[in-house]
Amino acid sequence: MRCFFRMCDLATGGLTEIHDLTDEIINYIAESKIKNGHLLIQPMHTTVGIYLNEAEPLLLKDFERELDARVPFSNDYLHDDIDKRLDCPPDEPINCHSHLKSVFFSNPSLSLVVFGGKLQLGRYQKILMAEFDGPCPRKHKTRRRYVVSIIGA
Amino acid sequence: MRCFFRMCDLATGGLTEIHDLTDEIINYIAESKIKNGHLLIQPMHTTVGIYLNEAEPLLLKDFERELDARVPFSNDYLHDDIDKRLDCPPDEPINCHSHLKSVFFSNPSLSLVVFGGKLQLGRYQKILMAEFDGPCPRKHKTRRRYVVSIIGA
Amino acid sequence: MRCFFRMCDLATGGLTEIHDLTDEIINYIAESKIKNGHLLIQPMHTTVGIYLNEAEPLLLKDFERELDARVPFSNDYLHDDIDKRLDCPPDEPINCHSHLKSVFFSNPSLSLVVFGGKLQLGRYQKILMAEFDGPCPRKHKTRRRYVVSIIGA
Repeated sequence: MRCFFRMCDLATGGLTEIHDLTDEIINYIAESKIKNGHLLIQPMHTTVGIYLNEAEPLLLKDFERELDARVPFSNDYLHDDIDKRLDCPPDEPINCHSHLKSVFFSNPSLSLVVFGGKLQLGRYQKILMAEFDGPCPRKHKTRRRYVVSIIGA
Repeated sequence: MRCFFRMCDLATGGLTEIHDLTDEIINYIAESKIKNGHLLIQPMHTTVGIYLNEAEPLLLKDFERELDARVPFSNDYLHDDIDKRLDCPPDEPINCHSHLKSVFFSNPSLSLVVFGGKLQLGRYQKILMAEFDGPCPRKHKTRRRYVVSIIGA
Repeated sequence: MRCFFRMCDLATGGLTEIHDLTDEIINYIAESKIKNGHLLIQPMHTTVGIYLNEAEPLLLKDFERELDARVPFSNDYLHDDIDKRLDCPPDEPINCHSHLKSVFFSNPSLSLVVFGGKLQLGRYQKILMAEFDGPCPRKHKTRRRYVVSIIGA
C-alpha cells in the first residue's frame, strides 16, 4: 500500500472567487505512483469551499452570484456581533456569511477515484476551490492551505 | 490491500428524477471480496447528483419539488446566454439550473464504510442518484456514467 | 494496511442541535495506530447532519437559525401526509423538514486526512454532528449512531 501526502497552498485575492486546481491535482497522481486508489482533497479553513463541476467562465460567475444571493453579506448574524464573543482578536472579520456559504453550499472535502494511474473525471468535471472570505479592504492576497492525500496501490 | 473498480452507467428519462442504486452497489461489495474498507461512488457528470437518504416515494417527490423551487429553471443565468460562450456546440442545452442543483444541493461523490463484508447503512439509508438535466424534448433516455471504487482488505 | 472500525453513538436532546465530536475522533486515530490514511465518519440516519466548520457558540446558533429559515418545519410536504404512505407506524413523526436539512444542507459522510498520526485539521475546524429530528415533545434523549473507519498504514 502506498500513501501520498502534500500540504498545498493557494493565494486568493477577491472576496468571492473560484480557482481551478485540476491540473495541479493530476500532477500529484503521477508523482504518487499510485495506480488505483482514492484521492482526498481537504481545505484547512472554515470559510472556503471545494467543488467538482464545470469551469466555464460564465458558469463560475453564476456560482458566485448565486452564492451571494443565497447568503447575504449581512443579515444580523449572531456570529458577527463581535462584542458578544469571547477571546476575539481586534481585527476579527465580519464573516458569518463566509461560514454559511462553506457549511451549507460547499463540501468539507472532495474524494475522487484514481484508476489505472488516472484521475477519473468526466469530460466537464474540474476541481474548484472557492474563497468566501477574501481580504478586506481587498488589497492583499490571502494564503489558503489544503491537503492532498492519495492512498492505494 | 485490494482495489475494486467498476465503470457503471444508468439510463435516465425525466428532467429531474431520482434512482435508487443501493442493491447494485451492495452486489459490488460481494464481488470485490473486500471485507473492511472504503467505498467511493463518483458520478462523471456536472449536472447529476448523488445522495444518501430515504427512498420513500413521496419523500423523493418532495426532494424533486424542493430542488425545482430552490433553483428555478430560468433566472437570467449567464451560463445560459449561449451566444456569449466560446466553442459552444449548436445543440448546447439551457442547463445552468442543473449545474446549480448539482453544485449547491448535492454531493460530488459519496464515501461509505464497508465492514465485515457489509456496506454500513442505517435502516432507512439508500444510495440515490439524481438526474437534473434530462433529455429535452424528453423523448429519449440519457446515459449517465459513474465509477464505483472500493479499497481495503 | 490497517483498518480501524468503531460503531459509535451520541445522545441528542433538542429538535435541532449541534455536537462537537472532534476530541473523540482524534482519540480513535491514536487507538488505530494508523499513521497515514483516510478517516471516514458516516452517520447511520437520514435526519441528521455532519459538518466540518468552526464551533464558536454564536455561529452554531446561526447555523441552527439558518437551517430552520431555509427549511420550514411545515410546508405541505408530501412525505408528511402520513395517511398516503404505506406501512407507516402509528407514531411516525412529521419530519420531512429534517430529511430536507440533511439531504440539501449537510453531507452524507465526512472524509478527512490522517498524516503523521495526526488528524489534519485547520485551526478552526471542528467535526460537528447535527440532530435535525429530535424527540417530540422533547422529553427524552435520542440515540444516534455513526461509524468511524480509518484505513491506511
